[in-house]
Amino acid sequence: MTLLADQTSPTAQDAAEPARVVFATSPEHYRHWGLSVDGPVATLTLQVDEQGGLVPGYELKRNSYDLGVDIELYDATQRLRFEHPGVKAVVVTGGLDRMFCAGANIPMLAQSSHAWKVNFCKFTNETRNAMEDSTEFGGQTYLAALNGTAAGGGYELALACDQIVLVDDGSSAVSLPEVPLLGVLPGTGGLTRVVDKRHVRKDRADVFATRTEGARGATAVAWGLVDETVPLSRFPDAVRARAEAAAATSSRDGAQGVTLTPLAWSEDGDVVTLPHVQARLDRAGRRVDITIQGPDAPPPRGADAVLTQGVDYYPLALARELDALVLHLRTNELQLGTWVFRTRGDSQTVLAYDAQLEELAGDWFVNEVTHYLKRTLKRLDVTSRSLLAVIEPGSCFAGTLLEVALACDRQYMLDGVPEEELEGIDPAAGAAVLTVGPTNAGRYPMGNGLTRLQSRFHGHEDALAAVLAQTGEQLDAAAASELGLVTVTPDDLDWEEELRIVLEERASLSPDALTGMEANHRFVGPETLETKIFGRLTAWQNWIFLRPNASGPDGALRRYGSGTRAAYDTARV
Amino acid sequence: MTLLADQTSPTAQDAAEPARVVFATSPEHYRHWGLSVDGPVATLTLQVDEQGGLVPGYELKRNSYDLGVDIELYDATQRLRFEHPGVKAVVVTGGLDRMFCAGANIPMLAQSSHAWKVNFCKFTNETRNAMEDSTEFGGQTYLAALNGTAAGGGYELALACDQIVLVDDGSSAVSLPEVPLLGVLPGTGGLTRVVDKRHVRKDRADVFATRTEGARGATAVAWGLVDETVPLSRFPDAVRARAEAAAATSSRDGAQGVTLTPLAWSEDGDVVTLPHVQARLDRAGRRVDITIQGPDAPPPRGADAVLTQGVDYYPLALARELDALVLHLRTNELQLGTWVFRTRGDSQTVLAYDAQLEELAGDWFVNEVTHYLKRTLKRLDVTSRSLLAVIEPGSCFAGTLLEVALACDRQYMLDGVPEEELEGIDPAAGAAVLTVGPTNAGRYPMGNGLTRLQSRFHGHEDALAAVLAQTGEQLDAAAASELGLVTVTPDDLDWEEELRIVLEERASLSPDALTGMEANHRFVGPETLETKIFGRLTAWQNWIFLRPNASGPDGALRRYGSGTRAAYDTARV
Repeated sequence: MTLLADQTSPTAQDAAEPARVVFATSPEHYRHWGLSVDGPVATLTLQVDEQGGLVPGYELKRNSYDLGVDIELYDATQRLRFEHPGVKAVVVTGGLDRMFCAGANIPMLAQSSHAWKVNFCKFTNETRNAMEDSTEFGGQTYLAALNGTAAGGGYELALACDQIVLVDDGSSAVSLPEVPLLGVLPGTGGLTRVVDKRHVRKDRADVFATRTEGARGATAVAWGLVDETVPLSRFPDAVRARAEAAAATSSRDGAQGVTLTPLAWSEDGDVVTLPHVQARLDRAGRRVDITIQGPDAPPPRGADAVLTQGVDYYPLALARELDALVLHLRTNELQLGTWVFRTRGDSQTVLAYDAQLEELAGDWFVNEVTHYLKRTLKRLDVTSRSLLAVIEPGSCFAGTLLEVALACDRQYMLDGVPEEELEGIDPAAGAAVLTVGPTNAGRYPMGNGLTRLQSRFHGHEDALAAVLAQTGEQLDAAAASELGLVTVTPDDLDWEEELRIVLEERASLSPDALTGMEANHRFVGPETLETKIFGRLTAWQNWIFLRPNASGPDGALRRYGSGTRAAYDTARV
Repeated sequence: MTLLADQTSPTAQDAAEPARVVFATSPEHYRHWGLSVDGPVATLTLQVDEQGGLVPGYELKRNSYDLGVDIELYDATQRLRFEHPGVKAVVVTGGLDRMFCAGANIPMLAQSSHAWKVNFCKFTNETRNAMEDSTEFGGQTYLAALNGTAAGGGYELALACDQIVLVDDGSSAVSLPEVPLLGVLPGTGGLTRVVDKRHVRKDRADVFATRTEGARGATAVAWGLVDETVPLSRFPDAVRARAEAAAATSSRDGAQGVTLTPLAWSEDGDVVTLPHVQARLDRAGRRVDITIQGPDAPPPRGADAVLTQGVDYYPLALARELDALVLHLRTNELQLGTWVFRTRGDSQTVLAYDAQLEELAGDWFVNEVTHYLKRTLKRLDVTSRSLLAVIEPGSCFAGTLLEVALACDRQYMLDGVPEEELEGIDPAAGAAVLTVGPTNAGRYPMGNGLTRLQSRFHGHEDALAAVLAQTGEQLDAAAASELGLVTVTPDDLDWEEELRIVLEERASLSPDALTGMEANHRFVGPETLETKIFGRLTAWQNWIFLRPNASGPDGALRRYGSGTRAAYDTARV
């Protein structure tokens, strides 16, 4: 196989994209965001360090952002949920005069490879979805306090908030100038949220998204682009009043937070080791073998004991480790196209934790842990890698961990107790089983609003009912296959050969075709704001990113700021 | 503006794509399809003329198809609905030994420009949707009688049928080999219909769509890929039995059909004239001014009189002319990026026809006319052109014709009686009005299942109710604006300047960004099989079509059949 250059973006190869992006950070290391807490209201203030770009080659002027800025925002949203049980409203505002945020940095986009742009957009989309998740499920309502202009990705950030207040100073506006200025879409949810969340009329959305200057004042309110405009003199009070009103409706409680201490992440060659997750990178085979270790002790008793464990509480540790690994592999290991998931441990202990998550669902911390697991599993659903679950003796695909298998594109399950010696499999472990838990019936909806079991059996309600009727049963390969929970169930004689074939086959296929195919297969049935953003909007944006009109040498992204207008191929396609 | 070459498809420019594609045809001119009728069952037999390609450079081997083959299929589906009231089931089969259809012709795809591929896919998708529309609304159930292998687009054609019967001859199979063989998606609805219509389980869909040889026999049935496999000896009888059973459930009646005689299409320079539709092509301005003439006489009385008018019945004539014009402009005039819609005529007469369509809704012919109007309006929704409605004195945007305005991205309405002399406007016509009719409340759903009014007021139920409460009222610009039916309402002093500005602005924007923006704005709210195919699946396919892994010199489309495997950029994006 030859490595082809990204032909549509000739100079992108020259840009010094970092060999490795690190997602771990903490407030004391933030360069771009300030996080302050005042009673039930936290404030996130964006004041971007112009010289603090993640990659050389651009300055982050006018509160524009790159991936590094967004990594801090993601970290802040996570810490707010876990470290600040008393925060019930989060105000997002800008720290520059008359400028909230100018959106994604254009020179950064112009110099970036296609893969970098796509990964950047996916992560920023996930972070904005996480803000909506905080509002809906975390009892933390996000409010955008637009102290100045919110342009492009800046306004898209505001759109992810529950409420938007714009300062009325005669000049500050909200705008989506991507189409007229850059020849690309407001692809971080902008187009979708304007019409599907804010319910802006189609023709007004059209005017708004083609007008560089955007909208302000009464028009912005009348069209539904913002909730209110307030003169500068009353702006802080108005924002505070909204934040306090939102906080007053929150059911969030809890006195003591859980500090998200650094993960114990270690690497030895091509092996990444975390306390409960290990990844072995096979560069020749272009895959990653990921093994999740189940909990090694029963859950602690009661909410207080759970809180005392904090980051060491197994379900939270699992979510954090899996989240970190997914982000690392997705961004830094593009060549590893297949992720193979295994588990090791005791299914009953996994289910005991699940039972506790259910039992203590009203506890703020347990609620946060459950939703974090949900968000992490959602990351898998939109990951452009082939996902394969390998269910062997000694595995613990039960309840929450069964969701990992269900998120995969295929499930391979070894049938029976191996008589042959098989690499990595304990001959004393007995036959592989998997177990459906109560949690699989609803705790972890996908972006389409369905559970992974509902998606799997879409249009086959009887089959779904049959599976749920087996809740708690240890299902061997024959039973799992009969119920439709696994794809193939080779015996020990065929096992290694079957795995070898599927992994080699996967590595031989077009990575792009696999990405498109998996994105379509994974989301059946209904669509939501979220699936529209990741499916429809993102796909159109990725297409546009490749077109010469955007990324060619005379395209709008490359010509922006040059004083020369873009030269377009004027054919409509 | 410079015309940029399609940089990702270097040799596509060399291919001799025809300067003009003609969509008009009729059975006596078919080269690829046979149409026969036997009582209530019609049979469409595909037997492609290998030398009958629309474009030089490829042979249509193994019943593979290009746009020319699909134009005949579309014509046949239309004639079956209008010319054959007695046909209640349609069998689609292949005329070659052991070969149903090998799908879209690969050398054709490999040599085609990006725009050609995109337009080809859009039209083929619309034709397959039309087959489903026949099954659901026309009382003509489509059945795929797979006399041999159905590969790729061949199987996608079968998927558009209500039932699929596969011959059991030990070799014939259904398959979607696009991913493994060509590095592209089964983008003519394949991926979507397999999981969302046939409800094939995600992991099985993954296996199926990555396996060149596809599936046959018991597996094809068990997975839901086909409904039945039948040995060759029983095949004709089994198909006939299914067709007759389907026909027996049809409520379709009617003795005498309406022959779809050739349209009176004339051209004079850049003016296309049809009896009720005129298009003026402004190449310098890169737009088309389309004027629809309302009916010039009241509707004939009663179903018999309507049928006697046949193709001259105004609503059918309108649908046919608009349909033909849309196909022509979309395929042959890529440079004309904005379509401006005007109407001329009497609103009350338009509404009188609408009332008749409602009154005679149970009549087979009127039912067909209404659904044809619906399908034609749907073509507008997925047309990658900026659509602008211009509502002037003398116009008749009422009921069915109001749908044209609502399909547009913006609505410009002249406020008041012009005192200035304005080009093309009759000073005696009085102020422009528009009128909501009962038909706007439900006769013409979009692909998302909503009416255009429901889409426009998505999330604003009160506003929708207020509009529907004005049904039948002549709404002037102030009233229409207040109700949210129009975008802007300039008076005579500003009118021409406002139109000039918006048209110039539109022509200055990136055609790709407009396509992506409009595709997202037009479809709010719920999604359906149809919107998933046109939104998500098509967008991913268009992206993949641009990627070097498919269309580059070493990509899979170009290497197919060369004996050399594709060389992939193995990075996952």
